[in-house]
Amino acid sequence: MEDKLQSVGFRQRLAAAYPWTTAPLIVGAPMRVMSGPALAVAVSRAGGFGFIGPSEKPESTAADLETAKGLIASSGIPQPTGSALPVGVGYQIWNGDLDVSASTVSQYHPAAVWLFASRHGQADVDVWTKRLHEASPETEVWLQIGTLQEALDAVRSASPPNVLVVQGAEAGGHGRTSDGIGFITLLPEIADATRGSGIPLIAAGGVADGRGVVAALGIGAAGVAMGTRFLASHEARIIKGYQDEVVRATDGGANTVRTHLYNHLRGTFGWPEQFSPRTIINRSWKEKQAGTAFEEIKKRHDQAVAQGDAAWGPEGWTATYAGANVGLVRGVAKAGEIVEEARNEAARIIQALSGL
Amino acid sequence: MEDKLQSVGFRQRLAAAYPWTTAPLIVGAPMRVMSGPALAVAVSRAGGFGFIGPSEKPESTAADLETAKGLIASSGIPQPTGSALPVGVGYQIWNGDLDVSASTVSQYHPAAVWLFASRHGQADVDVWTKRLHEASPETEVWLQIGTLQEALDAVRSASPPNVLVVQGAEAGGHGRTSDGIGFITLLPEIADATRGSGIPLIAAGGVADGRGVVAALGIGAAGVAMGTRFLASHEARIIKGYQDEVVRATDGGANTVRTHLYNHLRGTFGWPEQFSPRTIINRSWKEKQAGTAFEEIKKRHDQAVAQGDAAWGPEGWTATYAGANVGLVRGVAKAGEIVEEARNEAARIIQALSGL
Repeated sequence: MEDKLQSVGFRQRLAAAYPWTTAPLIVGAPMRVMSGPALAVAVSRAGGFGFIGPSEKPESTAADLETAKGLIASSGIPQPTGSALPVGVGYQIWNGDLDVSASTVSQYHPAAVWLFASRHGQADVDVWTKRLHEASPETEVWLQIGTLQEALDAVRSASPPNVLVVQGAEAGGHGRTSDGIGFITLLPEIADATRGSGIPLIAAGGVADGRGVVAALGIGAAGVAMGTRFLASHEARIIKGYQDEVVRATDGGANTVRTHLYNHLRGTFGWPEQFSPRTIINRSWKEKQAGTAFEEIKKRHDQAVAQGDAAWGPEGWTATYAGANVGLVRGVAKAGEIVEEARNEAARIIQALSGL
Repeated sequence: MEDKLQSVGFRQRLAAAYPWTTAPLIVGAPMRVMSGPALAVAVSRAGGFGFIGPSEKPESTAADLETAKGLIASSGIPQPTGSALPVGVGYQIWNGDLDVSASTVSQYHPAAVWLFASRHGQADVDVWTKRLHEASPETEVWLQIGTLQEALDAVRSASPPNVLVVQGAEAGGHGRTSDGIGFITLLPEIADATRGSGIPLIAAGGVADGRGVVAALGIGAAGVAMGTRFLASHEARIIKGYQDEVVRATDGGANTVRTHLYNHLRGTFGWPEQFSPRTIINRSWKEKQAGTAFEEIKKRHDQAVAQGDAAWGPEGWTATYAGANVGLVRGVAKAGEIVEEARNEAARIIQALSGL
């Protein structure tokens, strides 16, 4: 019974640390640019934990937090301890700006920062953790990992995170490339290996509704993070053509792939090799598979982007980062309703299972 | 609530079809050779559903069923409808012998056959389904699939299966190669797409204990199949060196891989390209990664095999097919205890969750 009691203890700890939240904890993942202040605050207002994603420019996160602060002030969300804001902020370590991030965090005190994509493993994470903790002691540190080794390195570190986000291979956007497996096996093994650390686990990658929430809780997670599902929310900071494609696409096993192609088409280079993003397949990927030269694909891509919304879709050419669970996303809804529905569906499923 | 009610209905249907079983249904997967009659009967005796795997030679399955029949006679397992045996048999379609299989099934009437690995999709499955159903009308047909399309093809077929086994990418042994994703996203999408078909779903790939059982039930499965966990059972028909390695290995994300290398080292060729097996990594894979020629690896492999148990292990050279959940398997136990423990742990977790 230790597993289950530990999980219960974790849920109590999270409820205490983030008093505006309702169990089971539903987290809005910090998707780059697309998780803006409106989405984060809507998730937190519904009793979830909303994260603002990294911005195009490091300085823009402060503006996002300023906007979030205004939305929170008028929302009536119960405040966490001290002066912390009831939203979080995500930072990509490998290309993040720690000076700017520390300054932002010291000014706005988000309830948590979510760190991910370190080039040099825990060593870089430690530098960020220490610095951000000094900048805002009330801000907790969440660390996203995708392998058992990363989890062990984090727990054994002199600056361990407060929460570990265990991201499985089905996740959209950037995650582990070669050794990626789903959280269905990764999370229980990490739970066993980090027992006694006192660090709660949040499952990420593949959850789009209450069913996935029950699955995550069943294997020992204290909560779940959803990304792709919130791309199809009214509050997402997303282009309509992109959002339409997330709603349209089905069968993530066949129609999504992990590749750096779209990063390169967008002019983004330098991602640490251990990471690659999952995207919905479109013409660019098919042309690459057919042997078309990158320069030619790039030309078509750039022409398509100039057309706006038409750049997305099965005949489109541009990056459409999304999870393998994209087929479970079938309509645009308010973020708060997504949170409530996932929580309520999870409760109903657990109730139905307990009656059997 | 439709999802949950459907799942409840499925569980009732399975309980009626397989009266010796206890919900939630725990299935012993038909691992080639290693799932012999002793393992299958032990699983069924504990209220699970044990399958005998394909044999080295098609004719050997009859001998396995004869052995199972004897074990069942002395076990006191409640018999299913008619003369069916309370165990199942697995057949690999692409290289199976349908004449021999039909003859075997007509003689022993296993409660179900589990079909998998068809070279030409549902067309080949249909041929097997019709023929085996004629050979033994009381034998139900389970079909293992790994993609949404395969599930749709099966459900729309004129000869649909009685049960669909949804195998995720974490599974050990042979599964889908390129488009493999975990059942965490695959199964809910299939559940939604096959709603109304009346066909229950069994989750396979990644489950090793009661935690995985709850996860599977949470996303709408009517039961789960376990393979790797039963490799570490006293009843498995497995070489000690292999079993020791399954118990020893951890971190399936880093230490397992899908590759045809070990098939080829064992002299097995011809698997349809859409399938490949997950195996624990050892010297052969590392040498291949280092650029060593196949012929050289083959020589070292064959020398190692001649040494018996030493052929396995991190410094071994031979095939060690296992799932990404191998790190959750930490000791050898009786198969019946594995079934009961998974079922009881699942019940305890559901109870703990329902109290929150």
